[in-house]
Amino acid sequence: MKTKATFYHAGCPVCVSAEQSLTTVLDPEKVDLEIIHLGEQPGRIENAESAGVESVPALVWGADTLHINFGAALADLK
Amino acid sequence: MKTKATFYHAGCPVCVSAEQSLTTVLDPEKVDLEIIHLGEQPGRIENAESAGVESVPALVWGADTLHINFGAALADLK
Repeated sequence: MKTKATFYHAGCPVCVSAEQSLTTVLDPEKVDLEIIHLGEQPGRIENAESAGVESVPALVWGADTLHINFGAALADLK
Repeated sequence: MKTKATFYHAGCPVCVSAEQSLTTVLDPEKVDLEIIHLGEQPGRIENAESAGVESVPALVWGADTLHINFGAALADLK
């Protein structure tokens, strides 16, 4: 069964690099990846926040929130 | 072709959680994952450092170093 995962980013260089890395190594058989640019979809910031995202880039799936390197604080995207 | 990746950790709760997450979603067809506990293998700290690891848990493959959440600074493991 595929797990739905969400990658939140803000188009920053650190974000783009992390996105390229993750999309390379995540198992497409296991992960159904949605990619959200919070700069373009500010309505999703609230979703990210309630999933525990504090900075981008971050990958959320199930109860796990992984902050990957550091691009920008979520607070700075509001 | 498989990419060799190295997951560096120090046995901390954040590390264990990240390891479980990553081993679930990484594509075994694409990634040949080596897991290094730096507390048990301090000789590998130098490798981690030269790959740009500043804190654990971190995943290194090719030229990419992804710091995942924050467990401990590499400096504190020496």
